[in-house]
Amino acid sequence: MTDAFARTPPSAVLPATRLLLFGATGDLSQRMLLPSLFSLHAEKLIGPDLKIIGTARSDLDDAGFRAAAAEALDKFLSPEARVPDAIPSFLDRLHYVPLDASKPESFSALSGVMGDDPNQHTAIYLSTAPSLFGSTIAGLQKAGLDGPNCRIGLEKPLGHDLASSAVINDAVAAAYTEGQTFRIDHYLGKETVQNLLALRFGNRMFEPLWNAENIEHVQITVSETVGLEGRVSYYDGVGALRDMLQNHMLQLLALVAMEAPARFGPRSVRDEKVKVLRSLRPIDRATVATHTVRGQYTEGAVGGKSVPGYIDELKQPSGTETFVAVKAHVDNWRWHGVPFYLRTGKRLPNRHSEIVIQFREVPHSIFAGRGAVLQSNKLVIRLQPEENIRLTVMAKEPGLDREGIRLREVPLDLSLTTAFAGFRRRIAYERLLLDLIEGDPTLFVRRDEVEAQWQWIDAIRDGWDAANVTPRPYSAGTWGPSAAIALTERDGVHWND
Amino acid sequence: MTDAFARTPPSAVLPATRLLLFGATGDLSQRMLLPSLFSLHAEKLIGPDLKIIGTARSDLDDAGFRAAAAEALDKFLSPEARVPDAIPSFLDRLHYVPLDASKPESFSALSGVMGDDPNQHTAIYLSTAPSLFGSTIAGLQKAGLDGPNCRIGLEKPLGHDLASSAVINDAVAAAYTEGQTFRIDHYLGKETVQNLLALRFGNRMFEPLWNAENIEHVQITVSETVGLEGRVSYYDGVGALRDMLQNHMLQLLALVAMEAPARFGPRSVRDEKVKVLRSLRPIDRATVATHTVRGQYTEGAVGGKSVPGYIDELKQPSGTETFVAVKAHVDNWRWHGVPFYLRTGKRLPNRHSEIVIQFREVPHSIFAGRGAVLQSNKLVIRLQPEENIRLTVMAKEPGLDREGIRLREVPLDLSLTTAFAGFRRRIAYERLLLDLIEGDPTLFVRRDEVEAQWQWIDAIRDGWDAANVTPRPYSAGTWGPSAAIALTERDGVHWND
Repeated sequence: MTDAFARTPPSAVLPATRLLLFGATGDLSQRMLLPSLFSLHAEKLIGPDLKIIGTARSDLDDAGFRAAAAEALDKFLSPEARVPDAIPSFLDRLHYVPLDASKPESFSALSGVMGDDPNQHTAIYLSTAPSLFGSTIAGLQKAGLDGPNCRIGLEKPLGHDLASSAVINDAVAAAYTEGQTFRIDHYLGKETVQNLLALRFGNRMFEPLWNAENIEHVQITVSETVGLEGRVSYYDGVGALRDMLQNHMLQLLALVAMEAPARFGPRSVRDEKVKVLRSLRPIDRATVATHTVRGQYTEGAVGGKSVPGYIDELKQPSGTETFVAVKAHVDNWRWHGVPFYLRTGKRLPNRHSEIVIQFREVPHSIFAGRGAVLQSNKLVIRLQPEENIRLTVMAKEPGLDREGIRLREVPLDLSLTTAFAGFRRRIAYERLLLDLIEGDPTLFVRRDEVEAQWQWIDAIRDGWDAANVTPRPYSAGTWGPSAAIALTERDGVHWND
Repeated sequence: MTDAFARTPPSAVLPATRLLLFGATGDLSQRMLLPSLFSLHAEKLIGPDLKIIGTARSDLDDAGFRAAAAEALDKFLSPEARVPDAIPSFLDRLHYVPLDASKPESFSALSGVMGDDPNQHTAIYLSTAPSLFGSTIAGLQKAGLDGPNCRIGLEKPLGHDLASSAVINDAVAAAYTEGQTFRIDHYLGKETVQNLLALRFGNRMFEPLWNAENIEHVQITVSETVGLEGRVSYYDGVGALRDMLQNHMLQLLALVAMEAPARFGPRSVRDEKVKVLRSLRPIDRATVATHTVRGQYTEGAVGGKSVPGYIDELKQPSGTETFVAVKAHVDNWRWHGVPFYLRTGKRLPNRHSEIVIQFREVPHSIFAGRGAVLQSNKLVIRLQPEENIRLTVMAKEPGLDREGIRLREVPLDLSLTTAFAGFRRRIAYERLLLDLIEGDPTLFVRRDEVEAQWQWIDAIRDGWDAANVTPRPYSAGTWGPSAAIALTERDGVHWND
């Protein structure tokens, strides 16, 4: 175990003075990374000595990259993140080195801009195709950028199964220790996701309820309205299970289900998460048919607009699922008998991500009469499109109760936007980039987590292959195949739409 | 045990067709009872055959009483309770019989208006001085109004100690069974008080938290800004302990502390309440000095207006307390070691009634840093002046947490006024009068409860006498004597002001 597993931030870790951005001209960089870095700059959260060095294949110079960056900021900065005065000084931080990441020998080009001091703290961020990870790391080693003061951030996908992820992780591990490796799952950068931890462990009142005795089931939904769009080449053959469920949704599940960590630090939090991931009951050939649903959208209408089916977009037949629903179990004492229903898909009726903690019924109702129907308590943590937390409770309806007491479900709302008015809503990457620059790995995914996730996902895929489970069609604009409804209804549970 | 202890409403109980109101020209009648009856009438909650017969010493006839009632409605109906169209038909229900309640033989005057059928269901309401209860009951017996279809509602004060309350209760019991006896504590008619039961037992999530393991202490405050005002003759010699704490506040305590009743019915609920009242740890001569504080206001300022002291209002010396604070304990498994702090007084800085459930700290904080100070969860149930329920929780403040996570206390509000907009706020007496008319005793106080309350209160008074504990002065407009602050601060607890 390295220092990076210790309490955060380890005092030996200093903020990086160089950030090396691979894929600097790409889509993610323009939409997320450059706007995030700009906000960190505008708020003086990064030191004045931090140099940001973009690399990509494009033949640009510093001026060209700065112009492209200025354009990206203009296009993608949210209105409240615009600080025109700060733009020139931000652009001054930017440098560019054209590099072919597939050619390690070309990395010598970096030496000019990186400076001579090999002990400079350096943050490296790979926002490139995973197929380039191996050669990129070889190039970084050649360029001497693999010292103890370097750390490397990796964007998903980290492989497409356990074996391929191991290849990538081994390649990274050849140059960097686990403590230097920052695997990004941008969901962990979201305020509401961190708020889930604040809520669970900053309050006395939730932990005694947070178990099988009081929770009936958990739902996690990540729904998108978009279809394939520009991701044809990546998405087909990958599918919803690997694109969304394997990473983001299992991370959410782990945060909901984990035991209390001893502290909010990288080792404690990730030790607890990986315990959950390893406790997931395998869904195998025997159970895959009853515990999972695969779907693929056909033509339909989303938001009142008719849209083509997946196959039409793809222009060729495909066995890739664009929807997946899973009934999972965490086999430990706390969660015995509590299903975790997960679903995600494209071309669903709306875009939202939420976690629903459904409490059990009261064991016995003391109230009689027609007005005394009790709805069970529910805690809904919504991540998208808005961030809020809602607790529903039963209260007495005012009145004289001539036919028995009348109870009604009322919401206790914690709108983070309202409670924290005046706080700008940040991009998740702001947090993650700053943590990478400063060297705090708490909100990054450890290798053992990724591997536990893949192991569980691989078993499902093996089950699908063995049982020849192909995606069922669903009309775009619906909540997936009817089998996804049946998955919960069999248990008497309704999806929270 | 009689039928009235069974599940409510017992099928044998029919709504009364006669309501006999003693003290019909008095202050309570004008301010509360007639406006309440009017609203029940306007909303057609009472049957068209219900005759309301007022009695008092004043020499009025039906017309005179109706005129007085019309005037009271005009003066005391809240704006949203005004339904001018319904006034004539309401006044038609009213009758009046002049009676001297101290002369049982005069009750024969009732026979004309009460009708001949001795089996008519009759509700009787005594809003008169307790000194008249004995002769009133003798008169009712003489008039044949003590049959099994009669029930009697009694206003406080029911005595001034256990012995005197037993005298009253015995007098009532000579004519009426316990099941026919409806002792009024108007706090039980308040929506928020009933909502406390809805909240505790209509929701899965509170009961697992509702115990000594999770609750650090409970506070109950009933503060008034008024001084003696017109109550000189009654209040002096009675004091805050007997006027407020003995009844309303101990009832609130019982509802907070009780075990789950098997059903929301008169027997179950009152069985559970009395268990709590009997479990109150006696405060005796040995503990009275450390567990109670008596106070009497001196001149000061309330709401920016200077007001005289109690003695000045009374115009003679007095040892009556106008403020009392008590640290109580419920000696059972659920509440072991949990103090219940109660305080009530006149001439305090504001008028409010509230119950505060203060949860314990988290056993261990996983969060470090200056921004990670955790406030313990709190559930505040406010009865007056507005009715609402507030749960405070810790949430993460949005931000990048460079010096550790920043947590902040945020409220989850259940404003009953907002959640139930469109519902008129009712007078507590509406509910209680209707329950009396219909014969549901759930929200009335049983004899064993009253006696348990007096027994506990008497021990405190005995302690005060024995130890010569006299009221400490406090300036009008402050939160009582400093000793009341010290009472909780010694335990590291702050009153929720």
